[in-house]
Amino acid sequence: MPHIQLDESLPGIRSLAYYRPDTGKALYQLAQTLLRDSSPLSEDERELIAAYVSYKNSCVFCTSSHAAAARFLYKDEKQIVDFVLDDYKSSPISGKIKALLNIAGKVQADARLVNENDIQLARIEGANDRDIHDTVLIAAAFCMFNRYVDGLATITTTDPAEYEKMGERMGTVGYIPPLKN
Amino acid sequence: MPHIQLDESLPGIRSLAYYRPDTGKALYQLAQTLLRDSSPLSEDERELIAAYVSYKNSCVFCTSSHAAAARFLYKDEKQIVDFVLDDYKSSPISGKIKALLNIAGKVQADARLVNENDIQLARIEGANDRDIHDTVLIAAAFCMFNRYVDGLATITTTDPAEYEKMGERMGTVGYIPPLKN
Repeated sequence: MPHIQLDESLPGIRSLAYYRPDTGKALYQLAQTLLRDSSPLSEDERELIAAYVSYKNSCVFCTSSHAAAARFLYKDEKQIVDFVLDDYKSSPISGKIKALLNIAGKVQADARLVNENDIQLARIEGANDRDIHDTVLIAAAFCMFNRYVDGLATITTTDPAEYEKMGERMGTVGYIPPLKN
Repeated sequence: MPHIQLDESLPGIRSLAYYRPDTGKALYQLAQTLLRDSSPLSEDERELIAAYVSYKNSCVFCTSSHAAAARFLYKDEKQIVDFVLDDYKSSPISGKIKALLNIAGKVQADARLVNENDIQLARIEGANDRDIHDTVLIAAAFCMFNRYVDGLATITTTDPAEYEKMGERMGTVGYIPPLKN
């Protein structure tokens, strides 16, 4: 049960954006800009970073929904997401994405741990400043979203079919906050 | 030295908002809405929560700047900020703010730790749903801002006079991103 009174027909962060629409609008604007607007990282790669960080934060709602969005966007390579969550180092992704997931993991644990070696490894694998910037901000932003959703104990469904629907919506219409009537 | 090429005349998050203005705009909008717009928590209380969470994340730039903003806003009670960062439980603040800092600290460490006892204690001390919501979102947001600033190793001054100026600006004009010429 949520720690505050929320609309129980809305899961996770949607109930919070509905509860306080002004911060909800700013948060959804951030998600849309970061995960859908211009970036050298593709939408599926960005959703994969979001799912990986949420998994490391043990946030069931954000892991399940962003993994579903990544699976939807990866289309024929849906299983990549599960390989990455299981063990990204041995997963069938590029060296560049592995190097960026290494940085994202350090940002999640303690951002001060990101060092020049991590950055150089990413550059050797083909990452530029914007790849590195966007990876750090996605990882940091999900450390916020995960805590917001879990710190208020929002409703989290465990039905995979619900997340599949969410993933398809996130992969097509993007991030639009729920509107008050 | 920052991990990516940033304008070195701008410290901390300002250099990042200048580097990528679209995400910068969304992040500053979130800060302005959360720390300055309508809330049952006063501006000084909200800056205090921001400084406390940043301190727990060992983010020098965010701790110093938001502690300076809180000191500016607390006016005659500036030393409250230093008491709180040293040990909030024995500091001269209300039981309500102590109970909310307890929740903020749990959100920083692992948001799943916030339990019904923490919430009930805050309610007994006079907190309502919006106090609790805003506290959790401020704590979560600073877990993002801290990681963004430190994960990219932005420029962090150690000059207290610089932070005093920042605190005064944050306490008067609020959160406005630096503009590209």
